[in-house]
Amino acid sequence: MDEFSLIARLFAPLAAGAPGALGLTDDAALIEGPAGRQWAVTADALVAGVHFFADDPPDLIARKLIRVNLSDLAAMGAKPCGAFLCACFPRDTGTAWLDRFATGLKSDCEEFGIALMGGDTVATPGPLTLALTAFGDVPAGQALLRSNARSGHDIWVSGTIGDAALGLRGLTGEGPADPHLIDRYRLPQPRIALGLALHGLAQAAMDVSDGLVGDLGHICRASGVGAVLRADLVPLSQPAAAAQDLALVLTGGDD
Amino acid sequence: MDEFSLIARLFAPLAAGAPGALGLTDDAALIEGPAGRQWAVTADALVAGVHFFADDPPDLIARKLIRVNLSDLAAMGAKPCGAFLCACFPRDTGTAWLDRFATGLKSDCEEFGIALMGGDTVATPGPLTLALTAFGDVPAGQALLRSNARSGHDIWVSGTIGDAALGLRGLTGEGPADPHLIDRYRLPQPRIALGLALHGLAQAAMDVSDGLVGDLGHICRASGVGAVLRADLVPLSQPAAAAQDLALVLTGGDD
Repeated sequence: MDEFSLIARLFAPLAAGAPGALGLTDDAALIEGPAGRQWAVTADALVAGVHFFADDPPDLIARKLIRVNLSDLAAMGAKPCGAFLCACFPRDTGTAWLDRFATGLKSDCEEFGIALMGGDTVATPGPLTLALTAFGDVPAGQALLRSNARSGHDIWVSGTIGDAALGLRGLTGEGPADPHLIDRYRLPQPRIALGLALHGLAQAAMDVSDGLVGDLGHICRASGVGAVLRADLVPLSQPAAAAQDLALVLTGGDD
Repeated sequence: MDEFSLIARLFAPLAAGAPGALGLTDDAALIEGPAGRQWAVTADALVAGVHFFADDPPDLIARKLIRVNLSDLAAMGAKPCGAFLCACFPRDTGTAWLDRFATGLKSDCEEFGIALMGGDTVATPGPLTLALTAFGDVPAGQALLRSNARSGHDIWVSGTIGDAALGLRGLTGEGPADPHLIDRYRLPQPRIALGLALHGLAQAAMDVSDGLVGDLGHICRASGVGAVLRADLVPLSQPAAAAQDLALVLTGGDD
Protein backbone atom coordinates (compact mmCIF):
# COMPACT_ATOMS: atom_id res chain seq x y z
CA MET A 1 0.00 0.00 0.00
CA ASP A 2 1.58 3.34 -0.97
CA GLU A 3 1.41 6.40 1.26
CA PHE A 4 -1.58 7.92 -0.51
CA SER A 5 -3.69 4.73 -0.42
CA LEU A 6 -2.79 4.28 3.23
CA ILE A 7 -3.91 7.79 4.11
CA ALA A 8 -7.09 7.55 2.05
CA ARG A 9 -8.10 4.15 3.43
CA LEU A 10 -7.01 4.32 7.08
CA PHE A 11 -6.65 7.92 8.10
CA ALA A 12 -9.03 10.04 5.99
CA PRO A 13 -12.12 8.53 7.70
CA LEU A 14 -10.78 9.92 11.00
CA ALA A 15 -10.79 13.40 9.48
CA ALA A 16 -14.31 13.20 8.06
CA GLY A 17 -15.95 15.26 10.80
CA ALA A 18 -13.49 18.17 10.54
CA PRO A 19 -13.83 20.40 7.43
CA GLY A 20 -10.50 22.06 8.31
CA ALA A 21 -8.68 18.76 7.78
CA LEU A 22 -9.42 19.21 4.04
CA GLY A 23 -9.76 15.43 3.69
CA LEU A 24 -6.02 15.04 4.50
CA THR A 25 -5.32 15.92 0.86
CA ASP A 26 -3.84 19.42 1.17
CA ASP A 27 -0.48 20.82 2.27
CA ALA A 28 -1.83 21.84 5.68
CA ALA A 29 -5.00 21.82 7.75
CA LEU A 30 -6.90 24.93 8.79
CA ILE A 31 -8.06 25.63 12.33
CA GLU A 32 -9.76 28.70 13.78
CA GLY A 33 -7.50 31.57 14.76
CA PRO A 34 -8.10 35.01 16.26
CA ALA A 35 -10.70 37.25 14.55
CA GLY A 36 -10.49 37.01 10.77
CA ARG A 37 -7.51 34.64 10.77
CA GLN A 38 -6.96 30.91 10.45
CA TRP A 39 -4.01 28.79 11.52
CA ALA A 40 -2.58 26.62 8.75
CA VAL A 41 -0.98 23.60 10.43
CA THR A 42 1.26 20.98 8.81
CA ALA A 43 3.39 18.07 10.07
CA ASP A 44 6.28 16.29 8.36
CA ALA A 45 8.73 13.65 9.54
CA LEU A 46 12.31 13.04 8.39
CA VAL A 47 14.23 9.80 9.04
CA ALA A 48 18.01 9.36 8.72
CA GLY A 49 18.83 7.10 5.81
CA VAL A 50 15.49 7.84 4.17
CA HIS A 51 15.08 11.62 3.90
CA PHE A 52 18.64 12.67 4.63
CA PHE A 53 22.02 11.07 5.25
CA ALA A 54 22.93 10.27 8.86
CA ASP A 55 26.28 12.01 8.36
CA ASP A 56 24.81 15.17 6.83
CA PRO A 57 25.83 18.33 8.72
CA PRO A 58 23.54 18.50 11.82
CA ASP A 59 22.66 22.15 11.25
CA LEU A 60 21.51 21.38 7.70
CA ILE A 61 19.37 18.46 8.94
CA ALA A 62 17.63 20.82 11.38
CA ARG A 63 17.11 23.45 8.72
CA LYS A 64 15.79 20.93 6.20
CA LEU A 65 13.28 19.73 8.81
CA ILE A 66 12.01 23.26 9.32
CA ARG A 67 11.99 24.08 5.64
CA VAL A 68 10.03 21.08 4.38
CA ASN A 69 7.32 22.13 6.82
CA LEU A 70 7.47 25.84 6.05
CA SER A 71 7.24 24.99 2.37
CA ASP A 72 3.82 23.46 3.08
CA LEU A 73 2.75 26.65 4.86
CA ALA A 74 4.03 28.77 1.96
CA ALA A 75 1.93 26.67 -0.40
CA MET A 76 -1.16 27.62 1.65
CA GLY A 77 -0.24 31.33 1.54
CA ALA A 78 0.38 31.31 5.32
CA LYS A 79 2.90 33.29 7.34
CA PRO A 80 4.91 30.90 9.59
CA CYS A 81 4.66 31.54 13.33
CA GLY A 82 5.89 28.54 15.31
CA ALA A 83 6.65 24.85 15.47
CA PHE A 84 6.53 21.80 17.75
CA LEU A 85 9.49 19.39 17.52
CA CYS A 86 9.51 15.69 18.36
CA ALA A 87 13.14 14.58 18.21
CA CYS A 88 14.17 10.93 18.59
CA PHE A 89 17.95 10.97 19.06
CA PRO A 90 20.09 7.80 18.82
CA ARG A 91 21.59 7.01 22.21
CA ASP A 92 25.15 7.79 21.09
CA THR A 93 24.30 11.31 19.94
CA GLY A 94 27.00 13.57 21.35
CA THR A 95 26.86 17.07 22.76
CA ALA A 96 28.78 18.60 19.86
CA TRP A 97 26.31 17.12 17.37
CA LEU A 98 23.35 18.40 19.41
CA ASP A 99 24.88 21.86 19.63
CA ARG A 100 25.23 22.05 15.87
CA PHE A 101 21.69 20.75 15.42
CA ALA A 102 20.38 23.48 17.75
CA THR A 103 22.44 26.08 15.88
CA GLY A 104 20.64 25.09 12.68
CA LEU A 105 17.25 25.31 14.35
CA LYS A 106 18.12 28.74 15.74
CA SER A 107 19.34 29.99 12.40
CA ASP A 108 16.09 29.11 10.63
CA CYS A 109 13.86 30.18 13.52
CA GLU A 110 15.46 33.61 13.18
CA GLU A 111 15.43 33.66 9.39
CA PHE A 112 11.74 32.78 9.18
CA GLY A 113 10.57 34.54 12.34
CA ILE A 114 9.23 31.46 14.09
CA ALA A 115 9.44 30.24 17.69
CA LEU A 116 9.86 26.72 19.00
CA MET A 117 6.65 26.26 20.99
CA GLY A 118 7.05 22.80 22.45
CA GLY A 119 7.67 19.17 21.67
CA ASP A 120 9.31 16.06 22.99
CA THR A 121 12.85 14.70 23.16
CA VAL A 122 13.35 10.93 23.42
CA ALA A 123 16.07 8.36 22.89
CA THR A 124 15.76 5.80 20.10
CA PRO A 125 17.59 2.55 19.38
CA GLY A 126 16.97 3.35 15.69
CA PRO A 127 17.99 6.09 13.27
CA LEU A 128 17.63 9.79 14.05
CA THR A 129 13.94 10.53 13.53
CA LEU A 130 12.48 14.04 13.54
CA ALA A 131 8.88 15.17 13.35
CA LEU A 132 7.88 18.81 13.18
CA THR A 133 4.42 20.35 13.35
CA ALA A 134 4.51 23.92 12.07
CA PHE A 135 1.78 26.54 12.04
CA GLY A 136 1.30 29.86 10.35
CA ASP A 137 -1.50 32.34 9.98
CA VAL A 138 -3.57 33.11 6.93
CA PRO A 139 -6.54 35.46 6.39
CA ALA A 140 -9.70 33.41 7.04
CA GLY A 141 -11.04 31.81 3.85
CA GLN A 142 -8.04 32.85 1.74
CA ALA A 143 -5.76 29.80 1.99
CA LEU A 144 -4.47 28.58 -1.39
CA LEU A 145 -6.16 25.17 -1.53
CA ARG A 146 -5.31 22.34 -3.89
CA SER A 147 -9.00 22.05 -4.69
CA ASN A 148 -9.39 25.54 -6.18
CA ALA A 149 -7.91 24.86 -9.64
CA ARG A 150 -10.39 25.44 -12.48
CA SER A 151 -10.48 24.77 -16.17
CA GLY A 152 -8.64 27.58 -17.99
CA HIS A 153 -6.20 28.36 -15.17
CA ASP A 154 -2.53 28.72 -16.09
CA ILE A 155 0.09 26.59 -14.33
CA TRP A 156 3.07 28.41 -12.80
CA VAL A 157 6.09 27.15 -10.93
CA SER A 158 8.56 29.14 -8.84
CA GLY A 159 12.31 28.77 -9.17
CA THR A 160 13.74 25.86 -11.13
CA ILE A 161 12.48 22.28 -11.15
CA GLY A 162 14.32 19.01 -10.53
CA ASP A 163 17.45 20.38 -8.86
CA ALA A 164 16.93 18.53 -5.58
CA ALA A 165 16.34 15.15 -7.25
CA LEU A 166 19.51 15.63 -9.30
CA GLY A 167 21.37 16.72 -6.16
CA LEU A 168 20.40 13.47 -4.44
CA ARG A 169 21.78 11.53 -7.43
CA GLY A 170 25.01 13.44 -7.05
CA LEU A 171 25.25 12.53 -3.37
CA THR A 172 24.68 8.83 -4.06
CA GLY A 173 27.28 8.81 -6.85
CA GLU A 174 24.68 8.15 -9.57
CA GLY A 175 25.22 11.54 -11.16
CA PRO A 176 27.61 14.50 -11.17
CA ALA A 177 28.13 16.02 -7.68
CA ASP A 178 27.16 19.57 -8.63
CA PRO A 179 27.30 21.88 -5.56
CA HIS A 180 24.22 23.90 -6.62
CA LEU A 181 22.12 20.76 -7.06
CA ILE A 182 23.31 19.20 -3.78
CA ASP A 183 22.56 22.42 -1.93
CA ARG A 184 19.03 22.40 -3.34
CA TYR A 185 18.55 18.84 -2.00
CA ARG A 186 19.97 19.57 1.43
CA LEU A 187 18.48 22.99 2.01
CA PRO A 188 15.06 23.58 0.42
CA GLN A 189 13.99 27.21 0.00
CA PRO A 190 10.41 27.71 1.23
CA ARG A 191 8.68 30.34 -0.92
CA ILE A 192 7.13 32.19 1.99
CA ALA A 193 7.09 35.68 0.49
CA LEU A 194 5.76 34.30 -2.79
CA GLY A 195 2.96 32.41 -1.02
CA LEU A 196 1.90 35.58 0.77
CA ALA A 197 2.07 37.59 -2.47
CA LEU A 198 -0.18 35.11 -4.27
CA HIS A 199 -3.34 36.05 -2.35
CA GLY A 200 -5.74 37.40 -4.96
CA LEU A 201 -3.56 36.15 -7.83
CA ALA A 202 -3.39 32.35 -7.53
CA GLN A 203 -6.35 30.16 -6.65
CA ALA A 204 -4.65 26.81 -6.02
CA ALA A 205 -1.11 26.01 -4.95
CA MET A 206 1.08 23.30 -3.49
CA ASP A 207 4.75 22.71 -2.88
CA VAL A 208 6.61 20.31 -5.16
CA SER A 209 7.74 17.55 -2.83
CA ASP A 210 6.83 14.40 -4.77
CA GLY A 211 7.82 15.69 -8.20
CA LEU A 212 6.15 18.19 -10.52
CA VAL A 213 4.12 15.61 -12.46
CA GLY A 214 2.89 13.78 -9.37
CA ASP A 215 2.09 16.92 -7.42
CA LEU A 216 0.27 18.55 -10.34
CA GLY A 217 -1.75 15.33 -10.38
CA HIS A 218 -2.69 15.93 -6.74
CA ILE A 219 -4.05 19.39 -7.61
CA CYS A 220 -5.96 17.94 -10.59
CA ARG A 221 -7.55 15.20 -8.48
CA ALA A 222 -8.46 17.60 -5.66
CA SER A 223 -9.97 20.07 -8.15
CA GLY A 224 -11.53 17.62 -10.61
CA VAL A 225 -9.67 19.05 -13.59
CA GLY A 226 -7.00 17.95 -16.07
CA ALA A 227 -3.77 19.69 -17.00
CA VAL A 228 -1.44 20.06 -19.96
CA LEU A 229 2.21 20.36 -18.96
CA ARG A 230 4.57 21.77 -21.64
CA ALA A 231 7.84 20.07 -20.66
CA ASP A 232 9.85 22.45 -22.85
CA LEU A 233 8.60 25.42 -20.82
CA VAL A 234 9.57 24.06 -17.38
CA PRO A 235 12.35 26.30 -16.01
CA LEU A 236 15.62 24.46 -15.34
CA SER A 237 18.81 25.57 -13.68
CA GLN A 238 21.94 25.47 -15.86
CA PRO A 239 23.25 22.24 -14.22
CA ALA A 240 19.81 20.63 -14.45
CA ALA A 241 19.57 21.48 -18.14
CA ALA A 242 23.04 20.05 -18.64
CA ALA A 243 22.01 16.78 -16.96
CA GLN A 244 19.57 16.06 -19.82
CA ASP A 245 17.35 13.82 -17.68
CA LEU A 246 13.90 15.28 -18.25
CA ALA A 247 12.10 12.27 -16.74
CA LEU A 248 13.88 12.69 -13.40
CA VAL A 249 13.49 16.46 -13.47
CA LEU A 250 9.73 16.23 -13.95
CA THR A 251 9.09 13.36 -11.52
CA GLY A 252 11.81 13.76 -8.86
CA GLY A 253 10.87 15.22 -5.50
CA ASP A 254 12.23 17.48 -2.76
CA ASP A 255 12.13 20.77 -4.69
CA MET B 1 22.82 15.33 29.23
CA ASP B 2 19.31 14.37 30.43
CA GLU B 3 16.14 15.43 28.63
CA PHE B 4 15.50 18.43 30.86
CA SER B 5 19.04 19.84 30.61
CA LEU B 6 18.89 19.33 26.85
CA ILE B 7 15.64 21.24 26.54
CA ALA B 8 16.77 24.03 28.86
CA ARG B 9 20.14 24.48 27.18
CA LEU B 10 19.38 23.92 23.49
CA PHE B 11 15.69 24.42 22.89
CA ALA B 12 14.36 26.90 25.47
CA PRO B 13 16.31 29.82 23.90
CA LEU B 14 14.34 29.20 20.68
CA ALA B 15 11.11 29.74 22.62
CA ALA B 16 12.20 32.92 24.35
CA GLY B 17 10.27 35.28 22.07
CA ALA B 18 6.96 33.46 22.44
CA PRO B 19 5.18 33.82 25.82
CA GLY B 20 2.74 31.03 24.84
CA ALA B 21 5.61 28.54 24.76
CA LEU B 22 5.74 28.87 28.57
CA GLY B 23 9.51 28.39 28.47
CA LEU B 24 9.01 24.80 27.26
CA THR B 25 8.37 23.83 30.88
CA ASP B 26 4.62 23.15 30.87
CA ASP B 27 2.42 20.30 29.62
CA ALA B 28 1.38 22.25 26.53
CA ALA B 29 1.87 25.58 24.79
CA LEU B 30 -0.85 28.18 24.34
CA ILE B 31 -1.64 29.89 21.05
CA GLU B 32 -4.40 32.35 20.19
CA GLY B 33 -7.79 30.87 19.37
CA PRO B 34 -11.14 32.32 18.37
CA ALA B 35 -12.59 35.07 20.60
CA GLY B 36 -12.03 34.36 24.27
CA ARG B 37 -10.35 30.99 23.69
CA GLN B 38 -6.82 29.66 23.47
CA TRP B 39 -5.51 26.51 21.86
CA ALA B 40 -3.43 24.32 24.15
CA VAL B 41 -1.00 22.36 21.96
CA THR B 42 1.21 19.45 23.00
CA ALA B 43 3.46 16.96 21.20
CA ASP B 44 4.73 13.58 22.37
CA ALA B 45 6.65 10.82 20.63
CA LEU B 46 6.59 7.07 21.33
CA VAL B 47 9.25 4.64 20.09
CA ALA B 48 8.89 0.84 19.96
CA GLY B 49 11.21 -0.78 22.47
CA VAL B 50 11.38 2.40 24.54
CA HIS B 51 7.84 3.54 25.31
CA PHE B 52 5.95 0.38 24.36
CA PHE B 53 6.72 -3.14 23.20
CA ALA B 54 6.93 -3.72 19.46
CA ASP B 55 4.58 -6.69 19.82
CA ASP B 56 1.98 -4.82 21.88
CA PRO B 57 -1.49 -4.94 20.29
CA PRO B 58 -1.47 -2.30 17.49
CA ASP B 59 -4.77 -0.78 18.58
CA LEU B 60 -3.42 -0.26 22.11
CA ILE B 61 -0.25 1.38 20.75
CA ALA B 62 -2.41 3.85 18.80
CA ARG B 63 -4.59 4.55 21.81
CA LYS B 64 -1.60 5.02 24.12
CA LEU B 65 -0.16 7.53 21.65
CA ILE B 66 -3.37 9.54 21.71
CA ARG B 67 -3.80 9.26 25.45
CA VAL B 68 -0.33 10.41 26.51
CA ASN B 69 -1.00 13.57 24.51
CA LEU B 70 -4.56 14.07 25.72
CA SER B 71 -3.30 13.67 29.26
CA ASP B 72 -1.16 16.77 28.72
CA LEU B 73 -4.21 18.66 27.47
CA ALA B 74 -6.25 17.50 30.46
CA ALA B 75 -3.50 18.81 32.74
CA MET B 76 -3.98 22.25 31.15
CA GLY B 77 -7.75 22.11 31.61
CA ALA B 78 -8.26 21.97 27.84
CA LYS B 79 -10.94 20.17 25.84
CA PRO B 80 -9.29 18.02 23.12
CA CYS B 81 -10.23 18.87 19.52
CA GLY B 82 -7.79 17.32 17.08
CA ALA B 83 -4.37 15.85 16.36
CA PHE B 84 -1.62 15.63 13.76
CA LEU B 85 0.09 12.24 13.39
CA CYS B 86 3.60 11.58 12.10
CA ALA B 87 3.91 7.81 11.75
CA CYS B 88 7.20 6.11 10.82
CA PHE B 89 6.32 2.52 9.98
CA PRO B 90 8.95 -0.22 9.60
CA ARG B 91 9.06 -1.42 6.00
CA ASP B 92 7.65 -4.85 6.83
CA THR B 93 4.53 -3.46 8.50
CA GLY B 94 1.61 -5.45 7.11
CA THR B 95 -1.89 -4.42 6.18
CA ALA B 96 -3.50 -6.35 9.03
CA TRP B 97 -1.29 -4.56 11.55
CA LEU B 98 -2.11 -1.18 10.00
CA ASP B 99 -5.80 -1.94 10.07
CA ARG B 100 -5.69 -2.72 13.77
CA PHE B 101 -3.63 0.41 14.40
CA ALA B 102 -6.23 2.52 12.58
CA THR B 103 -9.00 0.81 14.53
CA GLY B 104 -7.34 1.95 17.77
CA LEU B 105 -7.00 5.50 16.47
CA LYS B 106 -10.64 5.52 15.44
CA SER B 107 -11.79 4.18 18.77
CA ASP B 108 -10.05 6.92 20.74
CA CYS B 109 -10.91 9.68 18.25
CA GLU B 110 -14.55 8.77 18.84
CA GLU B 111 -14.21 8.33 22.60
CA PHE B 112 -12.54 11.72 23.08
CA GLY B 113 -14.31 13.60 20.29
CA ILE B 114 -11.20 14.50 18.32
CA ALA B 115 -10.43 14.50 14.59
CA LEU B 116 -7.24 13.55 12.80
CA MET B 117 -6.32 16.83 11.10
CA GLY B 118 -3.17 15.93 9.19
CA GLY B 119 0.30 14.49 9.45
CA ASP B 120 2.82 12.43 7.59
CA THR B 121 3.37 8.74 6.92
CA VAL B 122 6.88 7.53 6.13
CA ALA B 123 8.86 4.29 6.05
CA THR B 124 11.69 3.73 8.52
CA PRO B 125 14.53 1.19 8.64
CA GLY B 126 14.27 1.50 12.45
CA PRO B 127 11.62 0.76 15.08
CA LEU B 128 8.03 1.95 14.81
CA THR B 129 8.15 5.62 15.79
CA LEU B 130 5.06 7.74 16.35
CA ALA B 131 4.75 11.46 17.05
CA LEU B 132 1.46 13.14 17.78
CA THR B 133 0.70 16.83 18.14
CA ALA B 134 -2.67 17.31 19.83
CA PHE B 135 -4.62 20.48 20.46
CA GLY B 136 -7.56 21.42 22.59
CA ASP B 137 -9.34 24.59 23.55
CA VAL B 138 -9.33 26.37 26.87
CA PRO B 139 -10.91 29.67 28.00
CA ALA B 140 -8.30 32.42 27.44
CA GLY B 141 -6.15 32.97 30.50
CA GLN B 142 -7.57 30.01 32.42
CA ALA B 143 -5.15 27.22 31.55
CA LEU B 144 -3.88 25.28 34.58
CA LEU B 145 -0.19 26.22 34.48
CA ARG B 146 2.62 24.53 36.37
CA SER B 147 3.79 27.97 37.46
CA ASN B 148 0.63 28.87 39.40
CA ALA B 149 1.33 26.88 42.59
CA ARG B 150 1.59 29.06 45.69
CA SER B 151 2.65 28.55 49.28
CA GLY B 152 -0.28 27.10 51.24
CA HIS B 153 -1.87 25.24 48.32
CA ASP B 154 -2.90 21.63 48.91
CA ILE B 155 -1.58 18.87 46.64
CA TRP B 156 -4.15 16.53 45.08
CA VAL B 157 -3.77 13.57 42.76
CA SER B 158 -6.44 11.85 40.68
CA GLY B 159 -6.88 8.09 40.60
CA THR B 160 -4.18 5.85 42.02
CA ILE B 161 -0.42 6.35 41.73
CA GLY B 162 2.31 3.99 40.51
CA ASP B 163 0.12 1.43 38.74
CA ALA B 164 1.71 1.97 35.31
CA ALA B 165 5.29 1.64 36.59
CA LEU B 166 4.35 -1.59 38.36
CA GLY B 167 2.56 -2.77 35.20
CA LEU B 168 5.76 -2.27 33.19
CA ARG B 169 7.64 -4.38 35.76
CA GLY B 170 5.05 -7.08 35.31
CA LEU B 171 5.52 -7.05 31.55
CA THR B 172 9.31 -7.33 31.81
CA GLY B 173 9.04 -10.19 34.31
CA GLU B 174 10.52 -8.13 37.17
CA GLY B 175 7.25 -8.18 39.10
CA PRO B 176 3.86 -9.90 39.23
CA ALA B 177 1.94 -9.67 35.94
CA ASP B 178 -1.22 -8.16 37.42
CA PRO B 179 -3.79 -7.43 34.66
CA HIS B 180 -4.98 -4.17 36.28
CA LEU B 181 -1.43 -2.81 36.53
CA ILE B 182 -0.52 -3.88 32.98
CA ASP B 183 -3.66 -2.27 31.63
CA ARG B 184 -2.74 0.99 33.37
CA TYR B 185 0.68 0.90 31.66
CA ARG B 186 -0.67 0.10 28.22
CA LEU B 187 -3.73 2.31 28.24
CA PRO B 188 -3.43 5.54 30.21
CA GLN B 189 -6.68 7.28 31.21
CA PRO B 190 -6.51 11.00 30.40
CA ARG B 191 -8.48 12.93 33.03
CA ILE B 192 -10.25 15.19 30.54
CA ALA B 193 -13.46 15.74 32.49
CA LEU B 194 -11.51 16.34 35.67
CA GLY B 195 -9.25 18.89 33.97
CA LEU B 196 -12.28 20.79 32.72
CA ALA B 197 -13.94 20.62 36.15
CA LEU B 198 -10.85 22.09 37.82
CA HIS B 199 -11.28 25.59 36.35
CA GLY B 200 -11.80 27.87 39.33
CA LEU B 201 -10.75 25.14 41.80
CA ALA B 202 -7.14 24.24 41.01
CA GLN B 203 -4.47 26.78 40.15
CA ALA B 204 -1.64 24.55 38.96
CA ALA B 205 -1.73 21.07 37.45
CA MET B 206 0.29 18.59 35.44
CA ASP B 207 -0.01 14.98 34.39
CA VAL B 208 2.17 12.41 36.15
CA SER B 209 4.36 11.03 33.38
CA ASP B 210 7.82 11.04 34.98
CA GLY B 211 6.71 9.90 38.44
CA LEU B 212 4.88 11.75 41.23
CA VAL B 213 8.01 12.95 43.01
CA GLY B 214 9.74 14.17 39.86
CA ASP B 215 6.66 15.82 38.41
CA LEU B 216 5.78 17.56 41.68
CA GLY B 217 9.34 18.87 41.52
CA HIS B 218 8.58 20.36 38.09
CA ILE B 219 5.61 22.27 39.53
CA CYS B 220 7.73 23.47 42.46
CA ARG B 221 10.52 24.70 40.20
CA ALA B 222 8.11 26.43 37.79
CA SER B 223 6.28 28.09 40.72
CA GLY B 224 9.24 28.82 42.98
CA VAL B 225 7.76 26.91 45.93
CA GLY B 226 8.51 23.81 47.98
CA ALA B 227 6.22 20.89 48.80
CA VAL B 228 5.66 18.34 51.53
CA LEU B 229 4.49 14.97 50.20
CA ARG B 230 2.90 12.64 52.78
CA ALA B 231 3.71 9.22 51.30
CA ASP B 232 1.20 7.48 53.56
CA LEU B 233 -1.63 9.56 52.06
CA VAL B 234 -0.87 8.77 48.39
CA PRO B 235 -3.79 6.70 47.04
CA LEU B 236 -2.78 3.23 45.83
CA SER B 237 -4.71 0.56 44.00
CA GLN B 238 -5.08 -2.76 45.81
CA PRO B 239 -2.39 -4.50 43.66
CA ALA B 240 -0.05 -1.50 44.03
CA ALA B 241 -0.45 -1.57 47.82
CA ALA B 242 0.24 -5.31 47.77
CA ALA B 243 3.47 -4.76 45.79
CA GLN B 244 4.99 -2.87 48.76
CA ASP B 245 7.42 -0.91 46.61
CA LEU B 246 6.81 2.67 47.68
CA ALA B 247 9.97 4.00 46.00
CA LEU B 248 8.84 2.76 42.59
CA VAL B 249 5.26 3.90 43.17
CA LEU B 250 6.35 7.45 43.97
CA THR B 251 9.03 7.80 41.29
CA GLY B 252 7.79 5.55 38.45
CA GLY B 253 6.22 7.18 35.42
CA ASP B 254 3.45 6.69 32.84
CA ASP B 255 0.48 7.21 35.19
